Amino acid sequence: MALQIEKIKKSKISDVDFNNLKFGQVFTDHMFECDYENGAWQTPKIRPYQALAFDPSAKVFHYGQAVFEGMKAYKDENNDVWLFRPDQNQERINKSAERLDMPAFPKEYFFEGLTELLKLDKEWVQKGEGNALYIRPFVIATENCVSASASTNYKFMIICSPVQAYYAGEVRVQIADKYSRSANGGVGYAKAAGNYAASFYPAKLAAEQGYQQVLWTDASNHEYLEEAGTMNVFFRVNDTLLTAPTSERILDGVTRKSIIQFAEDKGIKVEVRPIKVTEIVEAAKNGELLEMFGAGTAAVISPILGFAHKDEKFELPKVENSYASFIKKSLTDIQRNLAEDKFGWRFKVQ
Amino acid sequence: MALQIEKIKKSKISDVDFNNLKFGQVFTDHMFECDYENGAWQTPKIRPYQALAFDPSAKVFHYGQAVFEGMKAYKDENNDVWLFRPDQNQERINKSAERLDMPAFPKEYFFEGLTELLKLDKEWVQKGEGNALYIRPFVIATENCVSASASTNYKFMIICSPVQAYYAGEVRVQIADKYSRSANGGVGYAKAAGNYAASFYPAKLAAEQGYQQVLWTDASNHEYLEEAGTMNVFFRVNDTLLTAPTSERILDGVTRKSIIQFAEDKGIKVEVRPIKVTEIVEAAKNGELLEMFGAGTAAVISPILGFAHKDEKFELPKVENSYASFIKKSLTDIQRNLAEDKFGWRFKVQ
Repeated sequence: MALQIEKIKKSKISDVDFNNLKFGQVFTDHMFECDYENGAWQTPKIRPYQALAFDPSAKVFHYGQAVFEGMKAYKDENNDVWLFRPDQNQERINKSAERLDMPAFPKEYFFEGLTELLKLDKEWVQKGEGNALYIRPFVIATENCVSASASTNYKFMIICSPVQAYYAGEVRVQIADKYSRSANGGVGYAKAAGNYAASFYPAKLAAEQGYQQVLWTDASNHEYLEEAGTMNVFFRVNDTLLTAPTSERILDGVTRKSIIQFAEDKGIKVEVRPIKVTEIVEAAKNGELLEMFGAGTAAVISPILGFAHKDEKFELPKVENSYASFIKKSLTDIQRNLAEDKFGWRFKVQ
Repeated sequence: MALQIEKIKKSKISDVDFNNLKFGQVFTDHMFECDYENGAWQTPKIRPYQALAFDPSAKVFHYGQAVFEGMKAYKDENNDVWLFRPDQNQERINKSAERLDMPAFPKEYFFEGLTELLKLDKEWVQKGEGNALYIRPFVIATENCVSASASTNYKFMIICSPVQAYYAGEVRVQIADKYSRSANGGVGYAKAAGNYAASFYPAKLAAEQGYQQVLWTDASNHEYLEEAGTMNVFFRVNDTLLTAPTSERILDGVTRKSIIQFAEDKGIKVEVRPIKVTEIVEAAKNGELLEMFGAGTAAVISPILGFAHKDEKFELPKVENSYASFIKKSLTDIQRNLAEDKFGWRFKVQ
């Protein structure tokens, strides 16, 4: 492939206050894009970040045929820029795309586009704890036609947004007992655009009752715990870490799988198995539920302080030796090139 | 409200071959749009149909926060233009929007925009059997931000596409026993963009085996029949018409409810109740399953000639006095102002 690069004339970076960033609202100088037409991906391009013209009939507006990924880049004290397991995101965006009948994006295009984009916009990756560049690869259906069938044309893009430490405030969750996020045979395991829109209304209802996230359960009987908000979820019962197995309904999160591997390596017992709501409620009542946390790219680990199930409310204890704090610190140290990369997870942008 | 109208300088209608239209690819001279900003719908506008600029971070591209409707306008021999139960579509787009945490679009804006647009583009509604103007109202999330939460900004649009008689070819369906379309607590009842993207891949797999549509079943056990492709579905067993009740999982189709009302008025027995796969398979084996058809705006009624369930294949008999033919003719006569409008379904555009 021959990547075409058109650089900006003047960077807009001096307009940005890196100490007052709202998540996902400021974008770097350049963007990567590649169009799928006539059955093939065309010449990939890096161009100045800009609005693009879309026909009102573009299929993405009507049928939600769109998938995405979320990644982060970090800069160490030597000004080197690092990614965390980008191969996982590259593989997963194609798995998501397959489920929505969209073409796979070639691995070499993905990595050359990503690397060149990050090299061009390297100044936007800020050093220091909590600072990172959030990276959003996505694919959208661009055929101009309102018939309800898979698009013939697509656009793959990568855009990047500088972010500070992600802190969602104190998080308590409400266990879903009416709404559902996904079902067997559905698209819950994919980072499909429509999964997120479907979660906004239940999340709003939970927020109105004082809960920052929905703790999703299976659609059939609301009997098993699945994900928290847009993150995978972990439970610490006594000294064991529990998380649901990935499935058709549950996203195969990169942070999730890294936590499992890291924790096991540290001698923490991890059980990956279906987790009943009743089991967690019981453990909370017995004082055996010591921690709960969400796991995802944006927050890495987001501690959950309490939860509600139907009319019952539970607060978790304050624990010393918190798994969440230990694992979050350890993973971010690996991500930021501050600790040994025992598992080969870091990827240097060069 | 003050509807702003900017007319085209020169119509492109003379470039269109109305005898060779592909569904949903040609659009009329004008489009209607209205933006939601700062918590309110702004001045609605009719403008020349054109591409619009979107930032790559617009939420619709990432989170599938988008809903739509499908309607048709018909022209009678007096050059009057008619809609079919547009109040139903107006109500439903707001129900869909609510489920995706999007603001309702005011009824008066909807009808003034729709009416003025159709008056401006009246020449695009062609007379004659099968000819119609397909109308696509839709709403998309336009906030420029990649955080996974409901958008602050939206765009409501109506675009119109001239269509000929919809004929999907011979349709046979495959009963879903792995993939699912929706679940309890989900968004199946809404015309949510993501529902459609999720159906493309299972539809492709069915097509590879020679079936033009998937006959969807419940996600829990694939035990009950729900919808066919993107249509509601009816079964004629002996002289009774069966269709599933609407639910969280099943779209409350305008054609569906019109068929039920019309058929009952004609003395046809209609049972609206959960329908087991085993019951239909049994009826097919016994020779009691006389007809199956899909019901939706695009095709009105789409006869289904046969179906597969797991490894069994069934062909339906050729029947005299087909319910599908009779009901389709009767409904389209009402739609086209060729028959009495006993139920008050027609709406004159004026």
